[in-house]
Amino acid sequence: MPLPVLEEIQRDLLALPGVGMSILEISHRSKTFEAILAQAESDMRLVADIPSNHRVLFLQGGASMQFSMVPMNLLGAGRTADYIDTGSWADKAIKEAKKVGTVNIAATTKADNYTRIPNQSELTLTPGAAYVHITSNNTIEGTEFKALPDTGEAPLVSDTSSNMFSGPIDVARHGLIYAGAQKNMGPAGLTIVIIREDLLQRSLEKKSTLATMMNYAVHAENTSLYNTPPAFAVYALGLVMKWLLAQGGLSAMAIANQRKAAKLYAEIDRTGFYRGTAQKESRSLMNVTFRLATEELEQRFVRESEAAGFDGLKGHRSVGGMRASIYNAFPEDGVDALVSFMRDFEKQRG
Amino acid sequence: MPLPVLEEIQRDLLALPGVGMSILEISHRSKTFEAILAQAESDMRLVADIPSNHRVLFLQGGASMQFSMVPMNLLGAGRTADYIDTGSWADKAIKEAKKVGTVNIAATTKADNYTRIPNQSELTLTPGAAYVHITSNNTIEGTEFKALPDTGEAPLVSDTSSNMFSGPIDVARHGLIYAGAQKNMGPAGLTIVIIREDLLQRSLEKKSTLATMMNYAVHAENTSLYNTPPAFAVYALGLVMKWLLAQGGLSAMAIANQRKAAKLYAEIDRTGFYRGTAQKESRSLMNVTFRLATEELEQRFVRESEAAGFDGLKGHRSVGGMRASIYNAFPEDGVDALVSFMRDFEKQRG
Repeated sequence: MPLPVLEEIQRDLLALPGVGMSILEISHRSKTFEAILAQAESDMRLVADIPSNHRVLFLQGGASMQFSMVPMNLLGAGRTADYIDTGSWADKAIKEAKKVGTVNIAATTKADNYTRIPNQSELTLTPGAAYVHITSNNTIEGTEFKALPDTGEAPLVSDTSSNMFSGPIDVARHGLIYAGAQKNMGPAGLTIVIIREDLLQRSLEKKSTLATMMNYAVHAENTSLYNTPPAFAVYALGLVMKWLLAQGGLSAMAIANQRKAAKLYAEIDRTGFYRGTAQKESRSLMNVTFRLATEELEQRFVRESEAAGFDGLKGHRSVGGMRASIYNAFPEDGVDALVSFMRDFEKQRG
Repeated sequence: MPLPVLEEIQRDLLALPGVGMSILEISHRSKTFEAILAQAESDMRLVADIPSNHRVLFLQGGASMQFSMVPMNLLGAGRTADYIDTGSWADKAIKEAKKVGTVNIAATTKADNYTRIPNQSELTLTPGAAYVHITSNNTIEGTEFKALPDTGEAPLVSDTSSNMFSGPIDVARHGLIYAGAQKNMGPAGLTIVIIREDLLQRSLEKKSTLATMMNYAVHAENTSLYNTPPAFAVYALGLVMKWLLAQGGLSAMAIANQRKAAKLYAEIDRTGFYRGTAQKESRSLMNVTFRLATEELEQRFVRESEAAGFDGLKGHRSVGGMRASIYNAFPEDGVDALVSFMRDFEKQRG
């Protein structure tokens, strides 16, 4: 979370200015909260240039809940959903979709240990697919889509949990975007769904059978107030949107993120002491994954980096190695310090 | 939220003591957060004397999500779930359960406008029922169960969203308890489920078909860390548990809540100018509902009470009249002030 946002939350925690109650206490049916929600949405629309025929929903349950809600709402009987398998999170999405209906794996880079994003030419798309699902950034494998796949008539559905809003996103090209808020947008416990209005028809048709809380159309009709929303997280996300606008918006974020990532990748590529795990054309700007010559050296790197004050550089247990997660709020001088630590470590061990 | 809790959240918002990071930023996989979660659970176990064979789950989605999760997990094919219909929220739970399986309405007080809780003798329980569901406190109608129904062998499932933890709760007599945290336990966006361990077997049997996020057994196996939990809300709930313990626990809360409610009901019963809508033996300690002679007088009451600084005394739109919600954190001098306002209003209009 950006420091100015944390400071504003702290300042107003006992009582919102002009309201006299804490954001932790106000009723979600109050005009105050309705205004907070509406402002958060309109600022997000401004930040991401969201077209007017896309609805923004503020939900709970994280991307993991969306793994089920997407097929429950969009995958009708007798239809097929295409999934592009680019790593662990995509795989989880696929497993949940298979519980709901027919899934076609349009492409997978599993044979390459998920070190890259597949090309357009590798996709085997189903004619008339209910939708095509991608994971825009793969946190564990350190890869990300650099361009959106062409899905023809089929709506593109993207799990953008780990790279929204790290740079511009072409919302108009998506049928549905979903993201847990906790990487770049706000605190954990809030999920954003941006859905093209015509797709809500599919949810409407399932109103009598689908659990009400799982139905996008219900949340859209009730402007995300069907049930008690996570009010504090919505408020905090709203402040982050204002911060993004003050930073110059998503183009400015993209420039900063590209510069931060470039510094790390340059260090990784400098001598061969470090080895980037993702193929160059698929490298993530958010999660920079790399390895060392031996696991023993990697363990030493993690130990010494922790002692030097770098937190969480250990890669995900399923892939090993190292991972530097450099989301929007991660400062550039933190990247500089890490690069300098990496260079010192190499000097001593190389 | 109790003021000391808000003050502690404010004090530590930029950095948790000894951690140096904000609760809004720390990883849910960190030892710090694991300790916060474990402490919140163990304090809750102390507060409510939760037996060791009951598991505590920290989930998202509110009671509305539990309306679906309960039958999805506990109501097997060919079985029947008994529901006791005591108002609007019970009715919503019933509607969602009917999407999942067979429901028997074991009793309803709809014919009495939900002004009371049915007696044991009125219950038509299904032999071998999968479970029996109650809504322990009915916020809209202002009623609450004063004693738990005898459900025989069938597990008792209770939606305690609006009166946990307003007083002692006999967890051992429940198969499952669920509650949105936002009334007495913490901020919105966190749902507590307390489930008797043997019932998890029913969830386990559905692992291959039920959405993973909807499966109680998955959350239990992963100690509520299957996916990113609403970390801030868990932290805040933990502070409320410590506050409850410092207040003397649930017996002390019950005494305070009984005293607060008794003052309001005494004023309502004093002359007949006000008319309590719930029957006396079913009156809620949390939501005190009452009416005046005419709707015009009620509108005037709402208007003047708002001008006098009382917020949200208007009853739910579905029933009209007035409602004073006096949850744990609502101070007794607030009740005194309201009683005094009511007396003045009567003097001027009576």
